[in-house]
Amino acid sequence: MKFTVDAQDAHCSARATTFITDHGTVKTPVFMPVGTIGTVKTVGPDDLLSVGVQIILGNTYHLYLKPGLEILQKAAGLHSFAGWKGPILTDSGGFQIYSLDDLKKISEDGVEFRSHWDGSSHFFTPEKVVDIQRVMGSDIMMVLDQCIPNPSDLDTARHAHLLTVRWAERSRKHFMQTQNAYGFSQYQFGIIQGGIYQALRRESLSALMDIDFDGYAIGGLAVGESTEIKNAMTEFCTGIMPEDRPRYLMGVGTPLDILDAIQRGADMFDCVIPTRNARNGTVFTGNGKLVIRNALYKDDFKPLEEGCGCYACRNFSRAYLRHQFNVNEILGLRLATLHNLYFYMKLVNDARQAVMGKSFLAFKEDFSEHYRSGKV
Amino acid sequence: MKFTVDAQDAHCSARATTFITDHGTVKTPVFMPVGTIGTVKTVGPDDLLSVGVQIILGNTYHLYLKPGLEILQKAAGLHSFAGWKGPILTDSGGFQIYSLDDLKKISEDGVEFRSHWDGSSHFFTPEKVVDIQRVMGSDIMMVLDQCIPNPSDLDTARHAHLLTVRWAERSRKHFMQTQNAYGFSQYQFGIIQGGIYQALRRESLSALMDIDFDGYAIGGLAVGESTEIKNAMTEFCTGIMPEDRPRYLMGVGTPLDILDAIQRGADMFDCVIPTRNARNGTVFTGNGKLVIRNALYKDDFKPLEEGCGCYACRNFSRAYLRHQFNVNEILGLRLATLHNLYFYMKLVNDARQAVMGKSFLAFKEDFSEHYRSGKV
Repeated sequence: MKFTVDAQDAHCSARATTFITDHGTVKTPVFMPVGTIGTVKTVGPDDLLSVGVQIILGNTYHLYLKPGLEILQKAAGLHSFAGWKGPILTDSGGFQIYSLDDLKKISEDGVEFRSHWDGSSHFFTPEKVVDIQRVMGSDIMMVLDQCIPNPSDLDTARHAHLLTVRWAERSRKHFMQTQNAYGFSQYQFGIIQGGIYQALRRESLSALMDIDFDGYAIGGLAVGESTEIKNAMTEFCTGIMPEDRPRYLMGVGTPLDILDAIQRGADMFDCVIPTRNARNGTVFTGNGKLVIRNALYKDDFKPLEEGCGCYACRNFSRAYLRHQFNVNEILGLRLATLHNLYFYMKLVNDARQAVMGKSFLAFKEDFSEHYRSGKV
Repeated sequence: MKFTVDAQDAHCSARATTFITDHGTVKTPVFMPVGTIGTVKTVGPDDLLSVGVQIILGNTYHLYLKPGLEILQKAAGLHSFAGWKGPILTDSGGFQIYSLDDLKKISEDGVEFRSHWDGSSHFFTPEKVVDIQRVMGSDIMMVLDQCIPNPSDLDTARHAHLLTVRWAERSRKHFMQTQNAYGFSQYQFGIIQGGIYQALRRESLSALMDIDFDGYAIGGLAVGESTEIKNAMTEFCTGIMPEDRPRYLMGVGTPLDILDAIQRGADMFDCVIPTRNARNGTVFTGNGKLVIRNALYKDDFKPLEEGCGCYACRNFSRAYLRHQFNVNEILGLRLATLHNLYFYMKLVNDARQAVMGKSFLAFKEDFSEHYRSGKV
């Protein structure tokens, strides 16, 4: 994958990079909205473009179950099926399966799990997950990994990390032996595991670099550990990750989490927070979060955020948004989602501009101060 | 209200007209999507413009209850509140109250009803309904009327028609004694009642014309009678309605119902059918209706309708729409709504073009033959 470092901040590890896929160029830091099951919930591809989304994430677990591979194959992949012409990254399903609690069984060969739709039994191997992502036709595919909660004891973390590395070897081998299905390039990222243990993280990354992936992700964070530990582990990992490949911190996070991670050298992020919060009526502003259902907003005719350029803020008031949620009109879910995605896109774009100007820490400090003020 | 007849078909009563409001010009025949409670369900104002909507309808009953008059007044009316800059017609609440079954009590003075939200008691008089619509700031307001089901006996129909006329007198008087609230013109339409009885319909219209409204609506149809009776009553009414005012057939209808009514000289229509059907997964095509949840469409990669210019058809397949409904993604509701509204807008626009070309009956015959074919 063509990858360049465009700028490196002078006072921290923050960086601005660019990578190129056959579906478009991505400038980092980048946030990838989660398009769970073929849709970034409540919004269409036109909406995503309107708020500046560069790349979306699709969930292999969900898409494998519905609509299923037969339909995705007949559709010539997820881009065509979902009407999204930009880049797509697909996860491996590992995290969703990890979240299924009692519905999974992990062995050396792979992971058996039951569908949350109908209880039907399925088996994912590292190779099968590559095959599925070949059918989905994602631009970037993630390897199957074993996720564990934090904190886990050293033995558990070592076992999961070693299994993840063995699966990564099988994944890469199968990737190299197979072809893309629709004539455009696909890339594959490895996932660093090792829980909260630096030695394991180092071992994990070292093994993955020997395998040689197109990019590397930090997995197994944002799963129960404190912010301090998350930041420390991110910093440790980015400190030893190769400079010439994208660095993807999986499942992060809040606006402040993302800035913490950018400061420490991470390039790519995904999280359900902006979209899920929107559907719960929580919207982000530069001065903190705003819970739109509050009676406080019933006659507040300001936009969600003054000066915001999103469709919701240009056309509607807090009072109207509150009314929408109050009477269960689903337009409100879309408007709040548009706003939150716009906010996240602006956040990472502003971060990029700050890095280009070698002033990321000042930007972060300023943003954080306003964001923590709560003066919405 | 400035009103012109642009064309009169040579072989039937169909006509093309134009009326002008301070929020824009409306060319008829026109279909008004129902924006129940400040939103045409699932879509935004940009969506409405994208499918060619000229004017929307708001429900006084719903808007009076939520968000309520205090908020609508502070918002400077419904246009500003809902972000819709085009014309708005508001009904009187009469039909919603009629639909409440046990929750209403009608007297000479007005109608008492209970809110479907919280059971709270409210009282609408003809004058109060004018006041409410002054606060909402609709371009066209309807008078409070008494709706009855069809068939009703002659005495019931006469009683309701006479009460409606007395209320119409009070409504017009109050309208003339009050002012618009936001500096733009408002107009008021009377509603013809009289059930399925020609003599009553004639009496009703004659009384309303003595009062002198800006336009006249045919109420009390599409409430249980056969298509034959609906067509006969429509034809009778339009035959005696003034030529120099808009003719609004309330609550109609299916695509074929609308063409039947256009043929008989009606200009304006509203109905929840295109939007409600969309949310149930039923979409309209020139070859009939299509139930998108059907397994038949799981790998049908054609658009909902070949050649349709709507956003849904330009970007997505039946298979994707079916998937959306299948996994309960609300984007599917919006896409189906956009398609159905586009279909209805095209229907009435095509009808207008046919009238302009003095060929409405040929257009209607051709449309009906394809629509009834069911070859979706």
